[in-house]
Amino acid sequence: MNANDEKPRLIIDMDEVLADTLHKFLFLYNRDYGIRMDIHQEPGKELHENLPEHLNGQWEIYAHQKGFFRDIPPMPGAIEIVKALQARYHVYIVSAAIEFRNSLEDKLDWLAEHFPFIPWTNIAFTGDKIIAADIMIDDRIKNLAHFPGRKLLFSSPHNLLITGYERVNNWQEVAKLLL
Amino acid sequence: MNANDEKPRLIIDMDEVLADTLHKFLFLYNRDYGIRMDIHQEPGKELHENLPEHLNGQWEIYAHQKGFFRDIPPMPGAIEIVKALQARYHVYIVSAAIEFRNSLEDKLDWLAEHFPFIPWTNIAFTGDKIIAADIMIDDRIKNLAHFPGRKLLFSSPHNLLITGYERVNNWQEVAKLLL
Repeated sequence: MNANDEKPRLIIDMDEVLADTLHKFLFLYNRDYGIRMDIHQEPGKELHENLPEHLNGQWEIYAHQKGFFRDIPPMPGAIEIVKALQARYHVYIVSAAIEFRNSLEDKLDWLAEHFPFIPWTNIAFTGDKIIAADIMIDDRIKNLAHFPGRKLLFSSPHNLLITGYERVNNWQEVAKLLL
Repeated sequence: MNANDEKPRLIIDMDEVLADTLHKFLFLYNRDYGIRMDIHQEPGKELHENLPEHLNGQWEIYAHQKGFFRDIPPMPGAIEIVKALQARYHVYIVSAAIEFRNSLEDKLDWLAEHFPFIPWTNIAFTGDKIIAADIMIDDRIKNLAHFPGRKLLFSSPHNLLITGYERVNNWQEVAKLLL
């Protein structure tokens, strides 16, 4: 991106990429409604589309609650591989968090706990991801579609039917491609 | 930025551009230490560099306090002119707020109060402003320097000695240039 610095700029999403947000939703659906944690997740469907209809709007209620984003488990391998990526890339964490006012402090505290090696300069909470970078890893094609650089679609049940993107199924595959 | 949409993308800073943050600092220095609100602000100096030495670190203590960014007066003309700019530009508000964890909710609530016509998709809280856009209005050259588009330096006492940038002294001058 920058004449006097050859490291490419890599931007990485949080939910369902760094953070196993689906697990947190399932934990709450299980706790509050007895939904099985291992409910079948139909490829191409959002999690809530696999649930009984009366729970349709519940995910948004959860996501707006203070604390929801604070104790989500990191994705397997994410911490070690992001740390390794920093040697070769300018790594930025970019989450479309502005939609959820109550997520902002939680997400910052979560990054401070699990990714303390990411400085504040390299974190962005956005609406639209209008970020200037070379590579983007994201599970949502709404974020990838208009990005002019290399796009890596991080697999999540909701995006499994999407074609036409370079796909990574887990952090080990990210490491294989980028390290 | 976008083949099927001719509106250029305009990104606008918050502190000392949309929000009169200097006024809030002066209000607190006056309340707590009897500093005159109309203290002489030496061109090219940060506000705290004009104050007695023992107050040097106080600005950061203020800026980290919950509520600091919530009740700052908007800059004269900013609301009306940003509203008018939306007709011709994709307006994004971009603040380097990640440095101040406690500012995040305050800044979002402040925008909701004074700029309710800006949707959440068009707000970003960043570290480095690595934003893809056509025009940037900012009072800090650290944000403007690496921006590849048109840069408008919004005057503030600390930047008055800086040359080599297209300068706007107030919102009326922004309107004249961009509307």
